[in-house]
Amino acid sequence: MDPALHPDVEPIAFLLGTWQGEGQGEWPTSGPFRYGEEMTFEHEGKAFLLYSQRSWAAEERTPLHFERGFFRLASPGRVEVVLAHPLGIVEVAEGPLSGTAIDVVSTSMALTATGSPVTELRRWMEVQGDVLRYELLMAMRDVPLTRHLTGELRRA
Amino acid sequence: MDPALHPDVEPIAFLLGTWQGEGQGEWPTSGPFRYGEEMTFEHEGKAFLLYSQRSWAAEERTPLHFERGFFRLASPGRVEVVLAHPLGIVEVAEGPLSGTAIDVVSTSMALTATGSPVTELRRWMEVQGDVLRYELLMAMRDVPLTRHLTGELRRA
Repeated sequence: MDPALHPDVEPIAFLLGTWQGEGQGEWPTSGPFRYGEEMTFEHEGKAFLLYSQRSWAAEERTPLHFERGFFRLASPGRVEVVLAHPLGIVEVAEGPLSGTAIDVVSTSMALTATGSPVTELRRWMEVQGDVLRYELLMAMRDVPLTRHLTGELRRA
Repeated sequence: MDPALHPDVEPIAFLLGTWQGEGQGEWPTSGPFRYGEEMTFEHEGKAFLLYSQRSWAAEERTPLHFERGFFRLASPGRVEVVLAHPLGIVEVAEGPLSGTAIDVVSTSMALTATGSPVTELRRWMEVQGDVLRYELLMAMRDVPLTRHLTGELRRA
């Protein structure tokens, strides 16, 4: 039995569902690449959404990246995101919700002893009908904030 | 087609699977409570395990807590954990692996503007055959490190 949506997450209910599509990445040290991706936003009747992401190399279809975490609202117009990445990093990001667009910037990044030295992430996401477009900018210890990923997914 | 296990995670392959059982919690401001729980450790052929946890109140069966993240090894005897919690917090924890026992202590905690002020977490977990036992200690801004959760799960 599916629980009712918690009213606190109604402003971001447009994210709910499974989204599949493709993206392209670029990074100074690795050059351009293409990937397939799936994102899932679920709820459990609580005041947050559960988020899972997986991506794979477009050609080889081998796994590339995974993200797991939660989206919630600090207030009706402000989103909070907490994520773990298998690179040995965690991310706290916050920012405005404008209609069906989210623009969050990391307020804290933390890493394990052998974690990847990501110092900043900025995520823009927008849903229009059954299409979710996003852009992700990343900075690392030796690389200033750079556009890293651009993707377009469709509701499955 | 299931990918082969990455050799780097063989030392913690004993965690793989779905674990179900019960636990009991205590906390100065909330008193004792009982909960049901499910933990899942999966792999994708990469050098980390994907971890998901959910718990629910033993009586009402309403969701209590969720954790999502990744376990990996810094070296054959040292575990690194990165987790996101829906309370608006992220956790980086590290510590020794001794046989099939893990003892990790948070090295970083970070929270959103409205996140729960958890300042430290310590997790002990041990697998013996098809039983996983764990204990979790937690400190918050106003509460010193206190035993919070004790659970016993069986491989499903």
